[in-house]
Amino acid sequence: MTYCCGLLVRDGLVMIADTRTNAGLDNVSTFRKLHVFERPGERVMGLASAGNLSISQAVVSLLAEGIENFDTGERETLLSAPTMFQGAQRIGKAIRMVHALYAAGLEESKLSFDVSFLFGGQIADGKLELYMIYAAGNSIMCTRDTPYLQIGEHKYGKPILDRSCTFETDLYDGLKIGLISMDSTMRSNLGVGMPLDVLVVRRDSLHAELNYRIEPGEPYFHDLRERWSAALRAAHNAIPRPPYRMQK
Amino acid sequence: MTYCCGLLVRDGLVMIADTRTNAGLDNVSTFRKLHVFERPGERVMGLASAGNLSISQAVVSLLAEGIENFDTGERETLLSAPTMFQGAQRIGKAIRMVHALYAAGLEESKLSFDVSFLFGGQIADGKLELYMIYAAGNSIMCTRDTPYLQIGEHKYGKPILDRSCTFETDLYDGLKIGLISMDSTMRSNLGVGMPLDVLVVRRDSLHAELNYRIEPGEPYFHDLRERWSAALRAAHNAIPRPPYRMQK
Repeated sequence: MTYCCGLLVRDGLVMIADTRTNAGLDNVSTFRKLHVFERPGERVMGLASAGNLSISQAVVSLLAEGIENFDTGERETLLSAPTMFQGAQRIGKAIRMVHALYAAGLEESKLSFDVSFLFGGQIADGKLELYMIYAAGNSIMCTRDTPYLQIGEHKYGKPILDRSCTFETDLYDGLKIGLISMDSTMRSNLGVGMPLDVLVVRRDSLHAELNYRIEPGEPYFHDLRERWSAALRAAHNAIPRPPYRMQK
Repeated sequence: MTYCCGLLVRDGLVMIADTRTNAGLDNVSTFRKLHVFERPGERVMGLASAGNLSISQAVVSLLAEGIENFDTGERETLLSAPTMFQGAQRIGKAIRMVHALYAAGLEESKLSFDVSFLFGGQIADGKLELYMIYAAGNSIMCTRDTPYLQIGEHKYGKPILDRSCTFETDLYDGLKIGLISMDSTMRSNLGVGMPLDVLVVRRDSLHAELNYRIEPGEPYFHDLRERWSAALRAAHNAIPRPPYRMQK
């Protein structure tokens, strides 16, 4: 399992991914799922994946090696994409190439072709953008109305995003809300786990302001989890008990 | 969609169910999903359903009319079940009878045989118990370690139950926590909606202490939703922003 979320606010972009992978419950490992592609001053992009690890790794490798464009002769990589939109399209194209290679074989093993990506960042004088790319290669773009996107095990961590995150949320408050969302998910699904990888990009800065791994036991995140638990207990204790009585 | 939860604590049992049903997004209705079977002083039982409404209604009707037992000649109803365990088994039997009638036809329409039940209550000098019954007719029983069970859209409302509900939780605090869990679910899934039906049974009382419908706009529940939202905002505002900086 996996949980990744991306928040796109006025000040910038936050992306967070866990690192737990599992093939069955008895084969659990740690793999980086958040990849950062950066040429400071020219572009910064984060790519987070959920789903079948062999598929997502193949897609990332294709995007690093480049996909040959027979019209132009160019090898198209993520680092050479002229815009974020064309980057998202290249990811979709790579997904479909991997689909052509593996989907039939996966189906023989009763496995579905399950993969999705979050792709966020900014290229040159283009806008800071955040995309979700599906297994079919199609994608949606994050807008101000709902300033976040999620992939993987998204339900446990969605309520806090729905309640607390708007386009006007401060960038590091966004990181904090994203970490609370991660915490809720990790508590309810053992398939999502530490360490966490974090990317923060300030709008128009064209570099990674923060590219950080939160290890188990890291003091701030440990404190956040404790404070959040205590605050939730206090919150429901502060609400009066239901006054309902039978209507005889 | 549906969300129902049941909490079994030292003082008693809480069951809560929403009432929204939908056949596609464009056909939304209100149906009672929490049924109360009661003979005060002798037994009190709550039965909540999730899944395909035609299946769950057929199961409830079978359990009310009774299933003929060819060995004994008895028509077995829920109200004649000698123990909660045998009640859960009768529910499982009714599910399999409905499966025999409809499963093949549903499959022709590309619909799965999707149904599950929560069944809680107490009969005579038996224990207060809470069961979850699956489409296969099998069931699990709630124990002290995890004093709640959920059916339907369970993920959004699970974190608050995990964090706040123990076997020692007060009965009406349990109702309150269940209502917060409902609120989180309704905010994130439009397929779960008001009004809510609530059953509270105090251990060894053998009657429904509360059998209540919370209508939209009802003042206590409205206030609970507002207070919970405000408390969550305050809770994450009280946590400091992440101190992370790039390690150069």
